[in-house]
Amino acid sequence: MGTIGLAVIGAGYWGPNLVRNAQATPGLRLEYLCDLDADRARRVLGDYSTVRVSDSLDEVLADPAVQAVAIATPAKTHLSVAMAALAAGKHVLVEKPLAATYAEGRQLVDAADARGLTLMLDHTYCYTPAVAHLRDLVRGGGIGAVQYLDSVRINLGLVQPDVDVLWDLAPHDLSIFLSILPDDVAPLAVAAHGSDPIGAGHACVAHLTIQLTGGAMAHVHVNWLSPTKIRTMVIGGSARTVVWDDLNPTQRLSVYDRGVDRSVPGDLGAEKRAQTIVSYRTGDMVAPALPEKEALRAVMAEFHASITEGRAPLTDGRSGLQVLSILEAASASLAQGGAFLPVLGADFREGVKA
Amino acid sequence: MGTIGLAVIGAGYWGPNLVRNAQATPGLRLEYLCDLDADRARRVLGDYSTVRVSDSLDEVLADPAVQAVAIATPAKTHLSVAMAALAAGKHVLVEKPLAATYAEGRQLVDAADARGLTLMLDHTYCYTPAVAHLRDLVRGGGIGAVQYLDSVRINLGLVQPDVDVLWDLAPHDLSIFLSILPDDVAPLAVAAHGSDPIGAGHACVAHLTIQLTGGAMAHVHVNWLSPTKIRTMVIGGSARTVVWDDLNPTQRLSVYDRGVDRSVPGDLGAEKRAQTIVSYRTGDMVAPALPEKEALRAVMAEFHASITEGRAPLTDGRSGLQVLSILEAASASLAQGGAFLPVLGADFREGVKA
Amino acid sequence: MGTIGLAVIGAGYWGPNLVRNAQATPGLRLEYLCDLDADRARRVLGDYSTVRVSDSLDEVLADPAVQAVAIATPAKTHLSVAMAALAAGKHVLVEKPLAATYAEGRQLVDAADARGLTLMLDHTYCYTPAVAHLRDLVRGGGIGAVQYLDSVRINLGLVQPDVDVLWDLAPHDLSIFLSILPDDVAPLAVAAHGSDPIGAGHACVAHLTIQLTGGAMAHVHVNWLSPTKIRTMVIGGSARTVVWDDLNPTQRLSVYDRGVDRSVPGDLGAEKRAQTIVSYRTGDMVAPALPEKEALRAVMAEFHASITEGRAPLTDGRSGLQVLSILEAASASLAQGGAFLPVLGADFREGVKA
Amino acid sequence: MGTIGLAVIGAGYWGPNLVRNAQATPGLRLEYLCDLDADRARRVLGDYSTVRVSDSLDEVLADPAVQAVAIATPAKTHLSVAMAALAAGKHVLVEKPLAATYAEGRQLVDAADARGLTLMLDHTYCYTPAVAHLRDLVRGGGIGAVQYLDSVRINLGLVQPDVDVLWDLAPHDLSIFLSILPDDVAPLAVAAHGSDPIGAGHACVAHLTIQLTGGAMAHVHVNWLSPTKIRTMVIGGSARTVVWDDLNPTQRLSVYDRGVDRSVPGDLGAEKRAQTIVSYRTGDMVAPALPEKEALRAVMAEFHASITEGRAPLTDGRSGLQVLSILEAASASLAQGGAFLPVLGADFREGVKA
Repeated sequence: MGTIGLAVIGAGYWGPNLVRNAQATPGLRLEYLCDLDADRARRVLGDYSTVRVSDSLDEVLADPAVQAVAIATPAKTHLSVAMAALAAGKHVLVEKPLAATYAEGRQLVDAADARGLTLMLDHTYCYTPAVAHLRDLVRGGGIGAVQYLDSVRINLGLVQPDVDVLWDLAPHDLSIFLSILPDDVAPLAVAAHGSDPIGAGHACVAHLTIQLTGGAMAHVHVNWLSPTKIRTMVIGGSARTVVWDDLNPTQRLSVYDRGVDRSVPGDLGAEKRAQTIVSYRTGDMVAPALPEKEALRAVMAEFHASITEGRAPLTDGRSGLQVLSILEAASASLAQGGAFLPVLGADFREGVKA
Repeated sequence: MGTIGLAVIGAGYWGPNLVRNAQATPGLRLEYLCDLDADRARRVLGDYSTVRVSDSLDEVLADPAVQAVAIATPAKTHLSVAMAALAAGKHVLVEKPLAATYAEGRQLVDAADARGLTLMLDHTYCYTPAVAHLRDLVRGGGIGAVQYLDSVRINLGLVQPDVDVLWDLAPHDLSIFLSILPDDVAPLAVAAHGSDPIGAGHACVAHLTIQLTGGAMAHVHVNWLSPTKIRTMVIGGSARTVVWDDLNPTQRLSVYDRGVDRSVPGDLGAEKRAQTIVSYRTGDMVAPALPEKEALRAVMAEFHASITEGRAPLTDGRSGLQVLSILEAASASLAQGGAFLPVLGADFREGVKA
Repeated sequence: MGTIGLAVIGAGYWGPNLVRNAQATPGLRLEYLCDLDADRARRVLGDYSTVRVSDSLDEVLADPAVQAVAIATPAKTHLSVAMAALAAGKHVLVEKPLAATYAEGRQLVDAADARGLTLMLDHTYCYTPAVAHLRDLVRGGGIGAVQYLDSVRINLGLVQPDVDVLWDLAPHDLSIFLSILPDDVAPLAVAAHGSDPIGAGHACVAHLTIQLTGGAMAHVHVNWLSPTKIRTMVIGGSARTVVWDDLNPTQRLSVYDRGVDRSVPGDLGAEKRAQTIVSYRTGDMVAPALPEKEALRAVMAEFHASITEGRAPLTDGRSGLQVLSILEAASASLAQGGAFLPVLGADFREGVKA
Repeated sequence: MGTIGLAVIGAGYWGPNLVRNAQATPGLRLEYLCDLDADRARRVLGDYSTVRVSDSLDEVLADPAVQAVAIATPAKTHLSVAMAALAAGKHVLVEKPLAATYAEGRQLVDAADARGLTLMLDHTYCYTPAVAHLRDLVRGGGIGAVQYLDSVRINLGLVQPDVDVLWDLAPHDLSIFLSILPDDVAPLAVAAHGSDPIGAGHACVAHLTIQLTGGAMAHVHVNWLSPTKIRTMVIGGSARTVVWDDLNPTQRLSVYDRGVDRSVPGDLGAEKRAQTIVSYRTGDMVAPALPEKEALRAVMAEFHASITEGRAPLTDGRSGLQVLSILEAASASLAQGGAFLPVLGADFREGVKA
């Protein structure tokens, strides 16, 4: 296949970024920017663009010049918009989260499978050079066994009217976790605590704890109310620990040869556990050089490549489903007082990484 | 009363700091450093000291030159050592935590009360200029209504053989919370999640969530395994938010006039909740000038002053008890899968601040 | 005047930024992107643009739809390109520096004056919210008397083949100094030291010292070879000191109420100078909230406004000339071993700020 | 020789540090703290010390229990105090600078040589783990050829009544430079610029530029008036560049495999110099693990070792002389308008490192 005709659906917060990057991606030809509010779409394109504006999804999907769509509409509309696109035979790139519920997401995955079309999630962070490096490092064994993950994503954020802070922000952290964890480390159970101190009607501050296969624990702190912006993730391993500070462009990743080792002399009885020898490594730290690349450019390139090569994209529908299953368990835990609840469908994990 | 004769009990990790600061505090006269291992005590004092060494608690307590003791022995010995001191009529300053259990702590508080002796906790952080400023700001209404608290205390720490990371580190955060919160904001329930990825026999990474009167939530993240050291606390309020970064000596406190406001037009029905007007303040940030003072010097001064003035110290036995009640609830939650459990004795709170 | 037709000349490093911002500025209509290499210009515009490409400056200047040009060609071509534009009756916005020499810059200023056309320098930094705030603060007396200025602008930069690091980077610092200093504080003399440790043929590391009216000193450190990027400026005053860290987006400006005061008792003889009482202020620090605005957008708006209002722009040709006079003195000092040399034309200063 | 009896002379700003570290150093026996103001000395020792106080230098020097003295009196007294000590056959450790002038320093070096006594400078920074690492790295060739050095040492400092900021602060930077530079890179000429914006009677802000053998340049910025504290040094090399940030305890040293390379194709004429191929390396950064050690402890250990081993200490009298020769040239340049002036005695350099 040669050039792929693309339509961007939705000219709101994220749409302009899709427009800009689609235009710069070899192999993609941006045909339309589609929004119910055509004036908003026109303002996004500006006065010097040859891209067409449409306020009709039907018109866009009926145009044979369009082979693929990138959807940046509110999550509750993903099911209807993406379903219409799949029904019209279009490949679909969709903003996170995949859909408003796991059940809806399931329908989209099944529909794409049935038609042999690409269904890809725009989990943008998974395409940053930092996460690409983390994936190689963590999945490749470079930090040893995973001991814990800790992600903080807080700032003075837009309080959403229809979703809580977990559904708004945690998809980033969860998709990153899924992208970098080895195949044998999967989410088993989830607990969530949250609060709504400003009376927004749902949690504005939340903490998510995930039990992983093998005893490790992952934690996510998301917060719309913090005056300071923090975007850090720590992935602790038995051999090394990585700290990712996304707001430090000159040193995003720091790989520490530092940690705690425990060695149990062979003949010790249980009562001598306290005498276990604990030792501390305090080696050098290495900050790997990372290329400067815009992640959304790589999203577009992967969308194009997965369509032309007829393969699943790195962040396919199943990875989107897995994020939804964790979020639904988190919401249930939040409603039930914070106890751990199992994550659905740990069994489909291998499909994700295949 | 004039000069108070003091003995320091315990020449381990913290004892040398007590020795150094006791020697520099007007009104205190350091008489003994007492440790079962007299050689260790001698090494702490060095070759040029006139302070006496003893390996006998009985000897020290029998000496009428000693009116007060500062105890820096392991937590599990606090009950017996402090009880002996109180029985001998000595005032007691004790390292955190007050005792190994709430019940033991209760005995110490009752014993001190019965004898009219000072029982003070060395919650050192509560005596830093930063916390003193925070107390004035938060209790004085300077940040408006408290919306959330978030404390992170992580670094490559000593893995303790007999207590988990919550009991080792969280007393710092809890005593600070109790010290700065207004009287009408008390801990109601606690949930805790933890993991032990190195097989230490108890949690090395833990998250503690506290529900407070009025709907606010406090969160504590403690971690012995992090290669990077973080000591930050955020206290979000309806009017201002304070960020305390204890590792940034030139700007420990940052007070942001920044946040989210929500205004509900008067005649809106419940279904229009989503249309509530949310507005964002992005005003200036002020970093208040703080004096440079060693906190432990202020601890010693408060110990001396509370004895001579016959009043309760800022961090009295009851504040130590309250920390123990939260820790015990946290341990129970940890054992029961992370659900919220009530905190004992919210009713004794007024006693704390009286 | 209504909409102003604009042509951007030069599609190299900076041209794309001019193109993007011109397109987004109300009142400007981008007619051409002109470059000797038409393919390069086409690549800059991309596949979706209605803007015309030309490889002929004559063609562009002959088009009556063009009333103004923005020049982003190498400095040595500024004289010929800008002169041609002025001769054709076009208003001119030119990249820094104004020209390759003071004499050439003088010709441009005189030509623009003679024809009543706008000649504006794209000193982009002067249009950032940070510098706008600094200007109000410093010129408005908010820091008291200016005591010193110190600017560091270092990173792994492009080693230019035809200009040294002073001519490449210092125009930024100098134009900022001139923009924020009060009218009665002018550059009097300049000394420069430099080195060329990689054999580039001219200085790659340089230090510039400027004596100002009233005894204050300004210093600039520019360096192409530093692996770490630093962009800081300190402006010390008798009442306050401001630190500008341009790489800290969450706290670019910090205004310190901190400094050294000296009070001389009235009846002291000269020999008692050493007994002068020096006192230290250590007050709060305030980080003012700054709007997020792209500076180049404000450059374009000022270009448009100065043309339509028939007034001198904030960074007019004279301010460009003053930068050239300091750079020429610096080059002469560099060649003569680093001694101070006078800056030409301190007398035209009032014209700059008028 | 066994234990060395030591007297500390001067109980002012630095004396207490000498007292504390002398007491903790094996092989040293602190006999006296000597100060004209015996009460001040008593306050430094506190109420629990067995160390003797004396207000008579003669008494101390006459005591055969004293074999060595550590002098922390004002610089202008160094000549008389150290001369008396040497005359009495005592080894001498002296605070920086060695003496008030090069000529005075020369007398001390000659006197120590004549008597075969140790004369050591307390250039404390040279004994930090960071500088020890830098010395190995830079002298060992780890950064390739030295291209430039840049040191910034600014904060709200004590404005000294009798010396300017260069003489107060730059000895730190200069002794570090001398300690880490390879033998074939020596200071040749010095230029200095300074200003006195508060009317202190001498420079409070100063910039020092040093030309080194081989074309590299070193620069020092010292400033008493800055509200922010900065302590950074950059050492640029052809292979690597090191950044030392002394206020970042968790990452003091950062070694960058990043820089500019220049390769000249073999057959190019001189006129093609501008076409030289410049390439940029952007490799990883390594932050080496450094031990946590108090530098002054290492100073004391080196003083003891150099006496007992009968060898020159790392920072001997000659290194102190070299610092004085640079400072005197800097003062002369300051007085003569900032031009470069030669540094005396580059010929004694080999003696320094021998």
